[in-house]
Amino acid sequence: MFLKIDTNINTPIYLQIYQRIHEGIKSGQLKAGQRLPAVRVLASELNVARGTIELAYQLLVSEGLLETKGAKGTFISQTIKNLPTNRSKEPEGLYLEQKAFNQTAPTNNCSKQNTNGYTVLPFQLGTPALDAFPHKLWARISARILRDSHFDLLSYPDAQGLRQLREGLARYLMISRGIHCSPEQIFISFGHRASLQLIAQSLFTAGDIGWFEEPGYHIARDFLQQIGLKLIPISVDGQGINVKQGVEAAPAAKFALVTPTHQSPTNVTLTLERRLALLEWANQQGSWIIEDDYDGEFHYQGRPLPALKSLDSEERVIYCGTFSKVLYPALRLSYIVVPPTYHDHFNSTAMIMGNQCPSWQQEITSTFIQEGHFSRHLRKMRELYRQRRSFLIEAIKIKLSDVFEVELQAGGMHIVVKIINGIPAIQFSQLAIYHGLKVEALDDWLINKKESDCLLLGFTNIKDKQESLMLCHKLNEISHNLLSCEELK
Amino acid sequence: MFLKIDTNINTPIYLQIYQRIHEGIKSGQLKAGQRLPAVRVLASELNVARGTIELAYQLLVSEGLLETKGAKGTFISQTIKNLPTNRSKEPEGLYLEQKAFNQTAPTNNCSKQNTNGYTVLPFQLGTPALDAFPHKLWARISARILRDSHFDLLSYPDAQGLRQLREGLARYLMISRGIHCSPEQIFISFGHRASLQLIAQSLFTAGDIGWFEEPGYHIARDFLQQIGLKLIPISVDGQGINVKQGVEAAPAAKFALVTPTHQSPTNVTLTLERRLALLEWANQQGSWIIEDDYDGEFHYQGRPLPALKSLDSEERVIYCGTFSKVLYPALRLSYIVVPPTYHDHFNSTAMIMGNQCPSWQQEITSTFIQEGHFSRHLRKMRELYRQRRSFLIEAIKIKLSDVFEVELQAGGMHIVVKIINGIPAIQFSQLAIYHGLKVEALDDWLINKKESDCLLLGFTNIKDKQESLMLCHKLNEISHNLLSCEELK
Repeated sequence: MFLKIDTNINTPIYLQIYQRIHEGIKSGQLKAGQRLPAVRVLASELNVARGTIELAYQLLVSEGLLETKGAKGTFISQTIKNLPTNRSKEPEGLYLEQKAFNQTAPTNNCSKQNTNGYTVLPFQLGTPALDAFPHKLWARISARILRDSHFDLLSYPDAQGLRQLREGLARYLMISRGIHCSPEQIFISFGHRASLQLIAQSLFTAGDIGWFEEPGYHIARDFLQQIGLKLIPISVDGQGINVKQGVEAAPAAKFALVTPTHQSPTNVTLTLERRLALLEWANQQGSWIIEDDYDGEFHYQGRPLPALKSLDSEERVIYCGTFSKVLYPALRLSYIVVPPTYHDHFNSTAMIMGNQCPSWQQEITSTFIQEGHFSRHLRKMRELYRQRRSFLIEAIKIKLSDVFEVELQAGGMHIVVKIINGIPAIQFSQLAIYHGLKVEALDDWLINKKESDCLLLGFTNIKDKQESLMLCHKLNEISHNLLSCEELK
Repeated sequence: MFLKIDTNINTPIYLQIYQRIHEGIKSGQLKAGQRLPAVRVLASELNVARGTIELAYQLLVSEGLLETKGAKGTFISQTIKNLPTNRSKEPEGLYLEQKAFNQTAPTNNCSKQNTNGYTVLPFQLGTPALDAFPHKLWARISARILRDSHFDLLSYPDAQGLRQLREGLARYLMISRGIHCSPEQIFISFGHRASLQLIAQSLFTAGDIGWFEEPGYHIARDFLQQIGLKLIPISVDGQGINVKQGVEAAPAAKFALVTPTHQSPTNVTLTLERRLALLEWANQQGSWIIEDDYDGEFHYQGRPLPALKSLDSEERVIYCGTFSKVLYPALRLSYIVVPPTYHDHFNSTAMIMGNQCPSWQQEITSTFIQEGHFSRHLRKMRELYRQRRSFLIEAIKIKLSDVFEVELQAGGMHIVVKIINGIPAIQFSQLAIYHGLKVEALDDWLINKKESDCLLLGFTNIKDKQESLMLCHKLNEISHNLLSCEELK
């Protein structure tokens, strides 16, 4: 089993060895009391430094899975006999690790994926509080619509999206985000990337250049690069994206993709000054601003600024919204707002691209909005997230004061913490993920890769004080294990 | 109103004038007894030939909307007072025309679109019999799943698709289409174009060349060209796509997109000899064959040939299936079967592209299959379509024997007819569509545009003998109107 080490993937080798032994123990290949190869033997067998093997062993010892018997060598601990073999639904123990493994190795055989693939992991980003979603109410509305459904719900849907849904959205955008638009300007898409696809196919050609926030939303980044666009990283500071830097780096860029309300992932709000500078650039250049307002509703200190789009007098902003954060991700519904003069253009692209969304989902969502459940739900969630966020911050103060420093912003669905004990964020993240805690390092959110000391912690699905404390305690353990390894280095 | 004539769009000017007057009468702008401008006056005003105006007037006279009073001129007929003003749901009269107008002018203001946009028009292609879909049963299953739904249905779905659904599909494909594949080889996509997108993003780069059937499925054609692929038209004859011609025209093509079971739109079945030749080419070149098996189930003379994929010993075929024809289009579920060795490659692309489909839709579909409803439904539909097809053929014999010659094939969801009275297919189609009969000319299905004499008539939603006769009668009237215009030319 040790010969499978892969030097290409970016999981450090010590962690791969650690994982192999872990898997070996779980699968029963490695039995209690069994002797492991000596450090130098394994090191030469794998052709890696002895320190690497020592790190792996040390981690497993600190978890009680291995025990060292001095000269005799290193053995699988007797304690593993007590490990649970049937996976409890509780978010801890081997189950978590299994889950984490599926998360980190998504191309593994799919049965694994689907056992757990859907479940939300602790600290997972960008997933609304699924326990708080009114899914009984949703089910009732759905059932009603299904019962009364007619052919309209079966045949090919409108490529622009269900009219009633777009009407509901137009009202919502005016009240909540300060955007005045007609239903004709709204295009419903099958998720955010389908929105980006529609924009790209309508306005850009392969090779076009765009500003991209650094750090920035890596899912959009990977997608846009995949479809052939070139992204120039423009750094983000305490005021949001650095427009001046953008103008210097790529004055003639075709577009800028920004997250003004809560910059993804720093949660910084783009200042009014920067907003105006950005608009001025776009107006002068005839460039496009793509505003991704994915979670603008979740603002906890005062009201959020209205959307950048609300300042867009010259129609250079394409506004992107989604239901993934405010309702639930599996709905796969997003939308964009385009300038009135571009309606026909976008519409013909939408018809070529096959932008139709399942009619039922649209009708259910539309009804949910029309009957007032949507705004009620948003208010409820805002309050819930405010609370869950404070639970986590509290728990960090108690359990991780010597490990993390919280960098708090006015909104968002996660918090950013700075690691203050010298552990590189990527190492912290990798071990945490392996233990089923979906803690992301800032590193992955950078185009110009560099080692960061920031972690992103989603709080939306952490139910209460107790869970926050329990999870922070786990992070603390992980921190200690890593520290003890650092010393070995 | 006459000054709006658009010489760019491909609707002939006489038809545009005809439509304007029609609209004018409907909207009340033109009143009974009102005098229309003299032919030569209008001709010079619009700067078109007098014959063009005469054609338009002639059409309207033959429909009783205008009347000529010799030297006095042409007037809006008194009979229009009797025209229905409130639109009945019956598929006839002005309502139909309004609907057709929405169909033909999809970029019109959306309220129009959404009033009727979803409804199936007579002769519409590729739409299953919506009246025969067991939507009460579907609603019951949905409601049950919604009631018992858990977080798994809310969070981000698996990018490859729901495991149970892929398992059900693997069994179905083996039994019905002779394809032996594992659930790991199947990727669920959001409609056929999303499937093509996943294939293109996984295997091709912009500018890659592919064979495309001539005539061929224009929706796939427009999409593939939109995303930057180059399509070489390869002609289709009585044996299907002409492989020899393909090898001569583009031997090194990266792929060939084919519809072997029922060629779209001719319904010709690709002969075994051609299938083997195609595979041989792909194997030698290392090229890809994309097999679109959109309606393989609907075969009325004997069993359909197994899918081309079933002969694919060297794994050069990507198989594409969809639920749009066998269940219903608004479901937005399609799937592909990829070679086992390409699973990881496709999976990572699927994750970047955001290929997730709404979990509920997948779970409902999976349950529908597992509980045996799917195969029952297919059997029922096959029988129904066999019957509806014969009704239409019968009605054509009775009403259109001097207009159409039916070119019958063994399967499909529409029939192909040859126009034998000299009316160009495109003119026939345009007037029919304007009258709410979604009759397509073969012209639109050609890359190398040329005037064709073939029409495509969908029969799946024509309920019975009476409706078939009524609709064929309408086609006959249209034929006569056009003939009388032809004489004027």
